[in-house]
Amino acid sequence: MKLTILGCYSATPRTTTNPTAQVLEINGHMFLIDCGEGTQVELRRNKVKFSKINHIFISHLHGDHFFGLIGLVSTFRLYGRTSELHIYGPKGLKEVITLQLKLSNSWTDYPLRFHELNTKESTLIFEDDRVEVHTIPLSHRVYTNGFLFKEKEGDRKLLIEKVLEANINVAYYRKLKQGHDVENEDGVLIDHTKVTAPADPVKSYAFCSDTAYKPAIASIIQGVTALYHESTFIEEHQHLAPTTKHSTAKQAAMIAKKADVGALILGHYSTRYDSLEPFKEEAKEIFDKVLLADDGKVFEF
Amino acid sequence: MKLTILGCYSATPRTTTNPTAQVLEINGHMFLIDCGEGTQVELRRNKVKFSKINHIFISHLHGDHFFGLIGLVSTFRLYGRTSELHIYGPKGLKEVITLQLKLSNSWTDYPLRFHELNTKESTLIFEDDRVEVHTIPLSHRVYTNGFLFKEKEGDRKLLIEKVLEANINVAYYRKLKQGHDVENEDGVLIDHTKVTAPADPVKSYAFCSDTAYKPAIASIIQGVTALYHESTFIEEHQHLAPTTKHSTAKQAAMIAKKADVGALILGHYSTRYDSLEPFKEEAKEIFDKVLLADDGKVFEF
Repeated sequence: MKLTILGCYSATPRTTTNPTAQVLEINGHMFLIDCGEGTQVELRRNKVKFSKINHIFISHLHGDHFFGLIGLVSTFRLYGRTSELHIYGPKGLKEVITLQLKLSNSWTDYPLRFHELNTKESTLIFEDDRVEVHTIPLSHRVYTNGFLFKEKEGDRKLLIEKVLEANINVAYYRKLKQGHDVENEDGVLIDHTKVTAPADPVKSYAFCSDTAYKPAIASIIQGVTALYHESTFIEEHQHLAPTTKHSTAKQAAMIAKKADVGALILGHYSTRYDSLEPFKEEAKEIFDKVLLADDGKVFEF
Repeated sequence: MKLTILGCYSATPRTTTNPTAQVLEINGHMFLIDCGEGTQVELRRNKVKFSKINHIFISHLHGDHFFGLIGLVSTFRLYGRTSELHIYGPKGLKEVITLQLKLSNSWTDYPLRFHELNTKESTLIFEDDRVEVHTIPLSHRVYTNGFLFKEKEGDRKLLIEKVLEANINVAYYRKLKQGHDVENEDGVLIDHTKVTAPADPVKSYAFCSDTAYKPAIASIIQGVTALYHESTFIEEHQHLAPTTKHSTAKQAAMIAKKADVGALILGHYSTRYDSLEPFKEEAKEIFDKVLLADDGKVFEF
């Protein structure tokens, strides 16, 4: 599982910082999460093969999270994309994208599928045999979802020497990997746990931005491998968090602790700060495994 | 008159090139012309005091000319702008901008005035005591205007030694500057041309992008100080110009020659070219005073 941060600063894009966008590679998928202005350029700068993006998840309709979407949709068209593009986000997203395509007389040649969200409870919005994606209802000034990405458990792994030793016909290997006991060539029932190892542990990633402190999400994201949680402010400006419906680094850490996550990644920093270190220091007072997102940074889990 | 090129490449923004946007400073005004994705960052990079922009002119609704507008409008809001912002562009622009402000629940606190254009003849769309702006109807795949910016003639200049010598009361200086003859203290009529010099010559700028070769615009832009004319292609790809409704460098030069302009600035280059020199070379075969636009370049006239 690989996470590339294209942008992790709040409010306006600047020469030195980008608004929210990140790419999650998980179990063969490449998911784009949020798409602030300039995302298509950041995809290029970070050498992401963006033709592989088939699913885009938009948390909410503040500009720093979606103003780059129409540009990316248009660029896919100019580059002759033919495969379906799925876009998940709040109601209204379809109207705003299609209006711009209509005005520019530039309908996409590829199928553009909108999945407009209005659920206020955690909901399964994408699933295939490798991954599932659920919404994480957040608390912000407009309707906002985080997203939980979970690998599905893979097959158990054959311990090939033990399988051979047990004299099992190759036709049964698949059943073994699926966790079934099988008869060997001598008619003896073989316990699959003796000749296979457990599947790789599943990994999961939760993206939570933007949101006020909302402890209720902990149950949804319990035990995730990595949690990206917004931390717009440090303690010095904690008074701004409730009114703007953002979180402090400490609050992000409190969520991480409550949800017992593998690692907490902080981001969505206010652009008023010169250094990110105070975010880390303050979060670490609550929760130890803290990482700082930054534009262009890559995390592998 | 100062022109700052923020972006002058066609199609998609890249790490090395920007889509169309430029700032024209003329007679005390700061006009933004077109606003491709990333324009607000380019304004910062080029250190343009963008709070001084009160008028934005959008040529047409292809993404590479306006996808950055909503971001700039939003940033003005975040920065506490209070002064009116006037936006001139094709019908539809108001709907697309206001829809996005509505969806993000972020109405501007400053007055946002849309001037939607649908004229097919050159029309005066802005005028004050310093400058006037006219549309230049262009020929493109969607409804498109270029813009002609013209300084208004200023006052004549007092030749102060001659004025003193002629014994003219200071109360008449203003009339002299306005081109009236006045009586001196001795009751003698003084010819204003003897004691004043002509006003500075007026400057003018024509922005013509995007357009197919359209010789009819020459009469509108006759004798302008500087003409920015799109040149998407060089001769090698001239066959693409009519179908895409763009121009070649040579065609831009033919317009410049026909309109007898002071200087031709080429831009809106296709991103397929590694070098801009062929554009200049080919244009120079037709018209001598050719300049190459490039991102970050500043022209003063």
